[in-house]
Amino acid sequence: MGFSLLPKEVKFFDMYDAQAQHLRKAAVFFKEIAEKGACSDIDVLKMHDIEHECDNTTHDIINGLNRSFITPFDREDILQLAQELDDVVDIIYSLTKRMHVYKIKEKNKALVQFAEYIDQATIWLGKALSGLRSMKNSKITHEACMEVNRLENMADQLKDAVIGEYMEKSKDAIKLIKWKEIFEGAETTLDICEDVVNVISSILVKQG
Amino acid sequence: MGFSLLPKEVKFFDMYDAQAQHLRKAAVFFKEIAEKGACSDIDVLKMHDIEHECDNTTHDIINGLNRSFITPFDREDILQLAQELDDVVDIIYSLTKRMHVYKIKEKNKALVQFAEYIDQATIWLGKALSGLRSMKNSKITHEACMEVNRLENMADQLKDAVIGEYMEKSKDAIKLIKWKEIFEGAETTLDICEDVVNVISSILVKQG
Amino acid sequence: MGFSLLPKEVKFFDMYDAQAQHLRKAAVFFKEIAEKGACSDIDVLKMHDIEHECDNTTHDIINGLNRSFITPFDREDILQLAQELDDVVDIIYSLTKRMHVYKIKEKNKALVQFAEYIDQATIWLGKALSGLRSMKNSKITHEACMEVNRLENMADQLKDAVIGEYMEKSKDAIKLIKWKEIFEGAETTLDICEDVVNVISSILVKQG
Repeated sequence: MGFSLLPKEVKFFDMYDAQAQHLRKAAVFFKEIAEKGACSDIDVLKMHDIEHECDNTTHDIINGLNRSFITPFDREDILQLAQELDDVVDIIYSLTKRMHVYKIKEKNKALVQFAEYIDQATIWLGKALSGLRSMKNSKITHEACMEVNRLENMADQLKDAVIGEYMEKSKDAIKLIKWKEIFEGAETTLDICEDVVNVISSILVKQG
Repeated sequence: MGFSLLPKEVKFFDMYDAQAQHLRKAAVFFKEIAEKGACSDIDVLKMHDIEHECDNTTHDIINGLNRSFITPFDREDILQLAQELDDVVDIIYSLTKRMHVYKIKEKNKALVQFAEYIDQATIWLGKALSGLRSMKNSKITHEACMEVNRLENMADQLKDAVIGEYMEKSKDAIKLIKWKEIFEGAETTLDICEDVVNVISSILVKQG
Repeated sequence: MGFSLLPKEVKFFDMYDAQAQHLRKAAVFFKEIAEKGACSDIDVLKMHDIEHECDNTTHDIINGLNRSFITPFDREDILQLAQELDDVVDIIYSLTKRMHVYKIKEKNKALVQFAEYIDQATIWLGKALSGLRSMKNSKITHEACMEVNRLENMADQLKDAVIGEYMEKSKDAIKLIKWKEIFEGAETTLDICEDVVNVISSILVKQG
């Protein structure tokens, strides 16, 4: 890690990078599940492991916060950022569990598209977080935040379109209930990614 | 506006009045949509404009707060009041979108009644807010808060009655899913109006 | 109550014990309703009375907090603990109302099991709360917190199992909608019990 006069600050950023990697793992694996159109027992356990690792990193950040006098930005923002990132992995895990409980056994084009949006959003979140390390990188962080907003918007439109279509054409109410819940969960994942960039944006404003 | 020794205070109240007017616009237009029993593309765009204007006023209040040393009441209360008022317009907009996505094409008596409650609640919220300008008006503010509570209660009973009836008599589960969500959204609108008066009541208590 | 140098502290614990008793009343009565498999008008009123009594105790704690300079633990924790306990009774009451509105008229084995978990959780919450009075009792409080976590876990698995089964086997979508909502409400009751023990755990950590 090299020599630094602000070792505690560097550690927070390293831990956020670790969270960003958990998000990437969860998003990439969720895309795989969406492509398969099914979520096995083993898939749920694997996603649970990712969720658990992310939990550990979140606890490390909270513990680090309790031990630190100097923090790279406001204490509440450090906490909220860690918790919102944790929420992203939590909801991806719960989406996986939902697919498993509902015994989904068919590839759904809209879900693959949601998974693609989630995948892209986590890439941008990683960039936004690493951009926080230095004010020189605030441009990339801004761009990343805008991209996540754009993806959330597209996911919202996709949700309305696909649920509207199910409501109009589906004859099978129970199938509709299952997919409505899965689509809403997928869209909420993007909402939480947007919550993350809102925290990041407010950190940038305070630093600016 | 006349001469005032407390210009910053007057501005906050003016901005709350502006929010109250956005609420009135949204509620009046929602009643129109409920009466028609349908929500066109253009209706959604028009409600989106109202929601966007209210967003702008909310941002003005937040920015005003960041620039002000003296505020007419606690900073957190100013922020929370602005955000709860914004939430009222947000949920009316999302109700409109839901009607559009679900291609509702029939006038529903219960929805017209909900729209009437929402309409009345926003009138009382306007009175409660303008009453905040002076302790002399605390009586009207109290009365307005009680009226909003009463309307929320009635909306809650209406929701139980109408959803209970659908559950009992409906043979069409998909139609039931649509209307259940719309009725719940309408009732939640009154819940958020009640959240607004709870903030207002706690401001009154602190001033009292 | 005996003589104490810290009368105000003793009062908070007495009020939490009162809340714990309201929780017990609500849980025991809910188990009765689940066993009957039906919730009459009178049952709803009776549960409403319990909810109202708990509200009163919650208000007493909030008022007590506003009058106290010395508190047994952090002010925010006192408030949050009181509110989360209140939320437990609120959701049990809303579950009761839901059963009434949906005109449930059949005993459901899974619901009886949920009611049993809720019953046990409120017993452990009572122990956890009374354990807070003295650091000497932190072991019992820890054990109680772990037991509530275990019950929440079991309720979560039960929810997935029973909703998964309904989704697979039910032909009646409207019946499924009713029971899904009731099972989710029952599981959320345990989630809120877990929120309570999370507050209690964080109080223990700060005292430790």
